[in-house]
Amino acid sequence: MYGHQNMNALPAIPQYIARSRGARLWDVDGNEYVDLMCSWGPVILGHGDPVVEEAAERQRRQGDCLNGPAPIMVELAEAMVATVADADWAMFAKNGTDATTMCCTIARAATGRKMILVAEGAYHGAAPWCTPFPAGVTAADRANLLQFQFNDIASIRAAAGEHADDVAAIIVSPFRHDAGFDSELVDPTFAKDVRAYCDEIGAALILDDVRAGFRLHDGGSWEPLGVQVDLTPWSKSIANGYALAAVTGTDRYRDAAGGIFVTGSFWMGAVDMAAGLATITELASRDAVSRMRDLGQQLRTGILGGATRWGFDVHYTGPAQMPNLLFANDSDYALSVAFTAEAQARGVYVHPKHNWFVSAAMTDADLDMALTGLDGAFGALRARYPQP
Amino acid sequence: MYGHQNMNALPAIPQYIARSRGARLWDVDGNEYVDLMCSWGPVILGHGDPVVEEAAERQRRQGDCLNGPAPIMVELAEAMVATVADADWAMFAKNGTDATTMCCTIARAATGRKMILVAEGAYHGAAPWCTPFPAGVTAADRANLLQFQFNDIASIRAAAGEHADDVAAIIVSPFRHDAGFDSELVDPTFAKDVRAYCDEIGAALILDDVRAGFRLHDGGSWEPLGVQVDLTPWSKSIANGYALAAVTGTDRYRDAAGGIFVTGSFWMGAVDMAAGLATITELASRDAVSRMRDLGQQLRTGILGGATRWGFDVHYTGPAQMPNLLFANDSDYALSVAFTAEAQARGVYVHPKHNWFVSAAMTDADLDMALTGLDGAFGALRARYPQP
Repeated sequence: MYGHQNMNALPAIPQYIARSRGARLWDVDGNEYVDLMCSWGPVILGHGDPVVEEAAERQRRQGDCLNGPAPIMVELAEAMVATVADADWAMFAKNGTDATTMCCTIARAATGRKMILVAEGAYHGAAPWCTPFPAGVTAADRANLLQFQFNDIASIRAAAGEHADDVAAIIVSPFRHDAGFDSELVDPTFAKDVRAYCDEIGAALILDDVRAGFRLHDGGSWEPLGVQVDLTPWSKSIANGYALAAVTGTDRYRDAAGGIFVTGSFWMGAVDMAAGLATITELASRDAVSRMRDLGQQLRTGILGGATRWGFDVHYTGPAQMPNLLFANDSDYALSVAFTAEAQARGVYVHPKHNWFVSAAMTDADLDMALTGLDGAFGALRARYPQP
Repeated sequence: MYGHQNMNALPAIPQYIARSRGARLWDVDGNEYVDLMCSWGPVILGHGDPVVEEAAERQRRQGDCLNGPAPIMVELAEAMVATVADADWAMFAKNGTDATTMCCTIARAATGRKMILVAEGAYHGAAPWCTPFPAGVTAADRANLLQFQFNDIASIRAAAGEHADDVAAIIVSPFRHDAGFDSELVDPTFAKDVRAYCDEIGAALILDDVRAGFRLHDGGSWEPLGVQVDLTPWSKSIANGYALAAVTGTDRYRDAAGGIFVTGSFWMGAVDMAAGLATITELASRDAVSRMRDLGQQLRTGILGGATRWGFDVHYTGPAQMPNLLFANDSDYALSVAFTAEAQARGVYVHPKHNWFVSAAMTDADLDMALTGLDGAFGALRARYPQP
């Protein structure tokens, strides 16, 4: 197993999944789960959402991978521009990594500069320039990166340092969601300071909304802060599991975006775009973000109650819709892994090192099943690790 | 429009496609075409092939983008390994660029070296290290590339030069298919010499079969030459238009492939894999390569006859299934573009600068329509450019 799926290579996490529906899935051994991973983010309206599937099927009957795009590309671009405040245009691709890489390339083309500032430990994809593990990566792949600390504007000034006039962009996640660490919400002052610093030095601000996009807000994740960003990579949830990524940007970066050469054999695939348009439309009409936030808050309340009841010191961090559960004094993740195994055994699909995802498809029954299973997991964990 | 689709931004090439079926497609204005571009390669059994669609739909009813792969991934990997002589394992991705980049990363991880030899002008994708246009690309992105000339083993030795013990891989296309140039078949001696040179210096031989894979041969494109390759990137035609890419390799590179971190949110998508498995199976059971070769040979005979009849000196190069038509003394492509416009006006979808693709779905009626339209295009071109 490779990539993030390799993080599943732990006892009691099922490797192969047979089928899914709504907020439930079944592994190849027939075990049923309430899904709190949502395919690592893409599934936002629920597995096999009927409205999205119908839109995809309608396009599929016409054609998918064609000699040029189908008209749906224009409709989808217009929907992205209408939905995201900082989007004056949109381009489409297949991977989140395509989109983050494109943003860097566009920023470099626009500024004629080469350096990119990246938060230490942040995940922006799995190309050689950004993959978190160095096998097969050369020094040249990282030669134009400078590292800062999330939520620390002084570290950005220090990282740019003498290179400030050669910085093409600062790329930052809407909140710190590094796998294996507590999540950290963005300090609104930091967000505003990053914007101001980009303006000061003439660099682009790239908000990497690949993981969080459309789960925290109907538009870009920093829109509620009133912080304008220049370029945004999107992927994961924008087409409810169909393979779609996007880049949106402001007019200032339009010419640069039009001047770079990026492409892929399937980037014009019309079915994925139809699914994307339906997803964006349904997210709004169902007020899905509010529903996910509400479900996430109930989940947090229930889990923190269970942890207290069973006497566990947990770190439950991140936004309600994308919670991250770690245990105190658990640097080898032994408690996390054991808890995950107990949760999976009780029909709750969670992960020991990566943030979870709540979908809008969760019913109250799904939430009950999740909370019951997780409470049972805490109990079983306590039996295995008796209190001193 | 961006990427290769930008090469469509020419008079009389329709930009937006409404629908497709078999070897035909229709633009948004309702014009019907015989398709000789096959969506730039992906469509190999024909648009909307019923067997592939049925396999995809069967998987779709179970689930697509899941928390882990579906069992279809194992079946597909086994089919790739059974079909391709030099494949001991397979990994899957979404873009041809993902696959070419992965091969370089695997070769670097395996050898602990950094340099990659690339043929001048060859297309291996659209990431910063390989995109054919330099906007937004930095010198560091290309710092570890050395260039050689296709079919020229001496140029490989010269390019490696003093770096020979730091060469991780040589990446080469099965034939030279650079857009805008005459195609050039591989000299079998060159292929054998490249293999021997890789063995001599301890580098991996990467055969970039993204564009030609499964159109020239049921296995790898150099299998008929008896030349073993180490790593092969695949994409385009392996799933008849569904978004799938793959890397296959030999046992020697298995550990390195397992040790790199590459991933994408949709790389485990089960529907695309089901389409891939059905495509590979159907290609064999329909003897599709022979059919495409036969169609391509009839096309070549007809087109060369038309060119002679109308007095045009054309360069009709490349394998029969992937022909490339350019005109002599046409460095600004004026004749090519005018010919394409006349062909499109007669219902034949071809391209003025990029090789074409023949699909196995072409019927004799499709071939007749193509030949009639292209002959008419030569005639109309002669009317616009009277012989001196």
